[in-house]
Amino acid sequence: MGSLKTLELNENRYFSSDPVQRETASLLYQRVKDLPLVCPHGHVDPRLFAENSPFPDPTELLVIPDHYLFRMLYSQGIPLESLGVPRIDGGQTENDHRKIWQIIGENFYLFRGTPTGNWLKHELYDVFGIRKRLSGETAMEIYDEISKELKKPENLPRAMFERFNIEVLSTTDSPIDTLDHHKKIKESGWKGHVIPAFRPDNVTDFMFRNWQNNIDALSHISGIDCGNYYGFIQALEERRRFFKAMGATSTDQGVLTPFTIELDEKEAVRLYEKAIKGKATPDDARLFTGHMIMEMARMSIEDGLTMQIHPGVHRNHNNEFFNIFGLDKGCDIPTATNYVDYLKPLLNKFGNDPRLNLIVFTIDETTYSRELAPLAGHYPAMKLGPAWWFHDSREGMLRYREYTTETAGFYNTVGFNDDTRAFPSIPARHDVARRVDCRFLAGLVAEHVLDMDEAEEVVVDLAYNLVKKNYKF
Amino acid sequence: MGSLKTLELNENRYFSSDPVQRETASLLYQRVKDLPLVCPHGHVDPRLFAENSPFPDPTELLVIPDHYLFRMLYSQGIPLESLGVPRIDGGQTENDHRKIWQIIGENFYLFRGTPTGNWLKHELYDVFGIRKRLSGETAMEIYDEISKELKKPENLPRAMFERFNIEVLSTTDSPIDTLDHHKKIKESGWKGHVIPAFRPDNVTDFMFRNWQNNIDALSHISGIDCGNYYGFIQALEERRRFFKAMGATSTDQGVLTPFTIELDEKEAVRLYEKAIKGKATPDDARLFTGHMIMEMARMSIEDGLTMQIHPGVHRNHNNEFFNIFGLDKGCDIPTATNYVDYLKPLLNKFGNDPRLNLIVFTIDETTYSRELAPLAGHYPAMKLGPAWWFHDSREGMLRYREYTTETAGFYNTVGFNDDTRAFPSIPARHDVARRVDCRFLAGLVAEHVLDMDEAEEVVVDLAYNLVKKNYKF
Amino acid sequence: MGSLKTLELNENRYFSSDPVQRETASLLYQRVKDLPLVCPHGHVDPRLFAENSPFPDPTELLVIPDHYLFRMLYSQGIPLESLGVPRIDGGQTENDHRKIWQIIGENFYLFRGTPTGNWLKHELYDVFGIRKRLSGETAMEIYDEISKELKKPENLPRAMFERFNIEVLSTTDSPIDTLDHHKKIKESGWKGHVIPAFRPDNVTDFMFRNWQNNIDALSHISGIDCGNYYGFIQALEERRRFFKAMGATSTDQGVLTPFTIELDEKEAVRLYEKAIKGKATPDDARLFTGHMIMEMARMSIEDGLTMQIHPGVHRNHNNEFFNIFGLDKGCDIPTATNYVDYLKPLLNKFGNDPRLNLIVFTIDETTYSRELAPLAGHYPAMKLGPAWWFHDSREGMLRYREYTTETAGFYNTVGFNDDTRAFPSIPARHDVARRVDCRFLAGLVAEHVLDMDEAEEVVVDLAYNLVKKNYKF
Repeated sequence: MGSLKTLELNENRYFSSDPVQRETASLLYQRVKDLPLVCPHGHVDPRLFAENSPFPDPTELLVIPDHYLFRMLYSQGIPLESLGVPRIDGGQTENDHRKIWQIIGENFYLFRGTPTGNWLKHELYDVFGIRKRLSGETAMEIYDEISKELKKPENLPRAMFERFNIEVLSTTDSPIDTLDHHKKIKESGWKGHVIPAFRPDNVTDFMFRNWQNNIDALSHISGIDCGNYYGFIQALEERRRFFKAMGATSTDQGVLTPFTIELDEKEAVRLYEKAIKGKATPDDARLFTGHMIMEMARMSIEDGLTMQIHPGVHRNHNNEFFNIFGLDKGCDIPTATNYVDYLKPLLNKFGNDPRLNLIVFTIDETTYSRELAPLAGHYPAMKLGPAWWFHDSREGMLRYREYTTETAGFYNTVGFNDDTRAFPSIPARHDVARRVDCRFLAGLVAEHVLDMDEAEEVVVDLAYNLVKKNYKF
Repeated sequence: MGSLKTLELNENRYFSSDPVQRETASLLYQRVKDLPLVCPHGHVDPRLFAENSPFPDPTELLVIPDHYLFRMLYSQGIPLESLGVPRIDGGQTENDHRKIWQIIGENFYLFRGTPTGNWLKHELYDVFGIRKRLSGETAMEIYDEISKELKKPENLPRAMFERFNIEVLSTTDSPIDTLDHHKKIKESGWKGHVIPAFRPDNVTDFMFRNWQNNIDALSHISGIDCGNYYGFIQALEERRRFFKAMGATSTDQGVLTPFTIELDEKEAVRLYEKAIKGKATPDDARLFTGHMIMEMARMSIEDGLTMQIHPGVHRNHNNEFFNIFGLDKGCDIPTATNYVDYLKPLLNKFGNDPRLNLIVFTIDETTYSRELAPLAGHYPAMKLGPAWWFHDSREGMLRYREYTTETAGFYNTVGFNDDTRAFPSIPARHDVARRVDCRFLAGLVAEHVLDMDEAEEVVVDLAYNLVKKNYKF
Repeated sequence: MGSLKTLELNENRYFSSDPVQRETASLLYQRVKDLPLVCPHGHVDPRLFAENSPFPDPTELLVIPDHYLFRMLYSQGIPLESLGVPRIDGGQTENDHRKIWQIIGENFYLFRGTPTGNWLKHELYDVFGIRKRLSGETAMEIYDEISKELKKPENLPRAMFERFNIEVLSTTDSPIDTLDHHKKIKESGWKGHVIPAFRPDNVTDFMFRNWQNNIDALSHISGIDCGNYYGFIQALEERRRFFKAMGATSTDQGVLTPFTIELDEKEAVRLYEKAIKGKATPDDARLFTGHMIMEMARMSIEDGLTMQIHPGVHRNHNNEFFNIFGLDKGCDIPTATNYVDYLKPLLNKFGNDPRLNLIVFTIDETTYSRELAPLAGHYPAMKLGPAWWFHDSREGMLRYREYTTETAGFYNTVGFNDDTRAFPSIPARHDVARRVDCRFLAGLVAEHVLDMDEAEEVVVDLAYNLVKKNYKF
């Protein structure tokens, strides 16, 4: 597999190989490649920037936080323990980060044709100046090179943030988070703009692990007794105010389905009471979660926070694996969703209100042209989030544009977000998104659907203006 | 946004930019571009041709009847009132058609990459000779130019019909329609072929608004008492005879799902009786509608009318909006459909009968390759309607061919239909369809799937022969 | 339709017409075009090779066993009786094979753009040396040419097998099959490698026609009393041992849905008992089939046979047609499937066990990116079978790679299988698969997603190495 080949990043990568389209794409790309990165939705740990300590080593930085990487390796029979992924039971896992990196090198061929592989190539080349292809033979040499790089001041987290030309980076945070890291960043005088987003799943879903404890924590942190429904709602409003004061411009909800329902207050009170007594059923949780999406929309209309929903993920599909390794380790699987019926109560109540800015994501591509583009192409309050998760990829983003543009247009979409935990992959991800949009627009120009000056305007809107507008930066 | 750029329609638009494919597509296009337009399914108002009055102004002609246009504008927060869309309550809406046109111009950039935008460009260029791009700056100038054009005799409805080279235009009509406009056209001596199609949804669906009144009207117009099931069936048969005498060659049914069921006569009688008493439930309506699809198939076998079904639309998704603006104003949303199970009773009873010619449309693209192409590729009675509604578009029609051809072939499809209320958009829509078919076939030729002489035959079949055959013109 | 045109097979067929991509695809194709054919899953009758008699005539060889062919003809109103398809009632069908071939010729234009058409062109050209296009005019001449060819020793079944460069050919066989043809082949000393695969649907599904008789036959052939659940399980294990001894390396299950469930033993015993008494309901059958998928996985872990599941086919959709012509005559229709929920019990019990090698097929393309690629990209035991049935085609295989590669990578797929009853179509089918993979990889190289040396490795893996590894040849 691994030969000692040179690592190259072709300047025309991801553009069509048709010469007319390629040249057009390249011209469009010149307009956006150096625009600042706006990152409205992601999972980078704010502690990085609060502490600004050097990244310890390549494995810690590039492998451990990236479930895309070990998902693929696991599927090919490589135990996660050998990749240093911590076990919940504290059981033995590999500690030698050089050994882990060696496994990555030996198996890097598995990532051929995948976004994960291409992001990592971009990071190695562009962030760390590596010029050799990663393989079993080169793994140790590359490890050493990166280790050396990580000691340099320009590779401290804040310096990287600046190097990456990030204009704003939003994290995703629980209502019971103190946002201490965000505070520390603010107080440090560093000019990097790192803001929180309000994600209340752990208190709005009765079935969330440790729900009762989370509610206690919410009472504690808000100073409002959440032992009853009214206190709970008030506490959420209070925490939104706090998040907003800390710079938040958006909320986020991850749900199995986009089911929404307007419960009457009495029913909401009753369900909440039942949950507080530890007697809520999965059905109760489903109803209450559907109701809380409605409530979050109401609050967004009041406080102006942009509202995000991303449904359709069957979390932790692999029970045994989940019990050993826990959350977010690659065993979430997408599942079919119905937006037309499930979002109807929400859209009927709030969808015509231009004060609401609701961004819906999907991981079920079959809904792009059938449901989401038509809904976003009608309701003033709804916008379509970018190609998400497994579809944050060359083919995925191209299909997204092909399936949504004709019905929703460009201006009912909201630009790119990277949704990543893997900080150094941010420039790579934005670059793919910009390149794919250039490619798509170049196709429209080459086939005389758009004129070049129109495409030049649209490409900047997609890369920069729409995300700023929709997330109110 | 709006600059004073020249409006151009490139002669190679929508063909692949690959030079080999483009040249082939262009050669194929020469064979079909001047063929007459056959329009077997649409919603143009026959009054236009009965009265042949001049079109009043650009807004009245190009904006008011086009829910594609104001759907997009509404989604971006522009109130329909400002676009002159009438409110059911008679409330204030914009009367100044120049102002409305100005809004269209200012927001025309929203339609970049959409079929709506490209149809309008084609109409402006080709029907009205406009050579400037529509924008806020040019809107008034273009308005004046079109207004002048509309006064010319060649832009009277009948003259336009002839200019457009329309061979036949079918409208869509209710069983209780007198077809007076069609009569008037016939009696006028004008040679334009404008025919009705029989669409009985307003009497076959108990839940249709004013169902009782419609039934009374059906009794009245047919001279047959529809107070009982047998009279109702007889009246439908009678009206089909009348429609056929007036030139109709097809029927049409729009249903939420393609659910079909064979009720025994007693059950049908019972449900109908219940409905007449005003006691039918939504479930009763669903059963009866499923039964009436079967009945319509039976009648088609008897009288030879081609039968169309187009399911899968959740009508009037936005209740508030629907209450203000009413039907067909852009708040219909597609929904997932199941053809395999739902059409089974129908296809098992009539699908092997070559006398039936059943054309099924879909707006759920996921069923193309999974359900509809396999069904059309097996049952002799069933054919696959063209890419429909949101998919009557460049990408939509290309996907349609990609997803259906390998399983159903070309000859189980039925050519294009424009399904439009917007009369002057007809040539633009047919042109896109012809171009996309040329593009698809050019791809097959360039990749040596078909020989050029085969493609030359197929392209004419798709543009002209198949629609005439399947709609029995 | 039919002109006397030359039949040509362009050497670059199915490659992109973009010159850069075409050249790259052609270079990649040189690496795989002459690799042996590995056929791990199909339905060729082993009697062909046991008896090695000359094929009687072109119609018998190329038409009668190919439901793809008469499916399309039937959909266009051509009665199957006129194509010589036998009726169950023994009723009259066409006996004159020349007449049948003439019909094929006259209607061959219906197959334009379809895989069936292109396979047949390949067979005529490459297997029989025909150089004229098949049409009504040339049909008889071509019939005579092929008839002459069929008399030559190089067109005897075994000689063809060798000419085709088949390394191994697996048939699909029932547990109650004696495998006498396989035995005879083995004993004949012929070196062609023809092996069975174990497909137990006719005994694991209570609703299978003649289930009781099949169980009796299973008792008889295994020598184990299958009157109770324990005997039944033991008999299956015994038959698997026998199949394995006869060369089998895999099992196969065709099911309506991939529903799996772990029944406790008592419940399994009870359901089986009920079935033996002839009292099983469809629900019982569904539960028991779901349970038997689990049991088959357990057995595969024990005996090492690769396990295949291919769900999602509504068999015999057309009742009347089925009653006249029986199984596998082209009235099977795909249906939507849910892998995420239905496979969960199976994958939770066995999905982390690297001893299991589970290959899942689909005919519902909407699940590629949403369900199957994510599942195969996580569970070590699961692999994704190739584009199947209607999607064993140019467009189908291209979409398969586009939708699965980014999430599952190349190495969670298992190479091609032809799944055919039509022996002489085998080289054509493998050739299409190899060409489409070359085309896909050439696209990745041209767009700088992969380097050429990587693509050169991958293309050989897809054409040869992966299938050998996953089917343990």
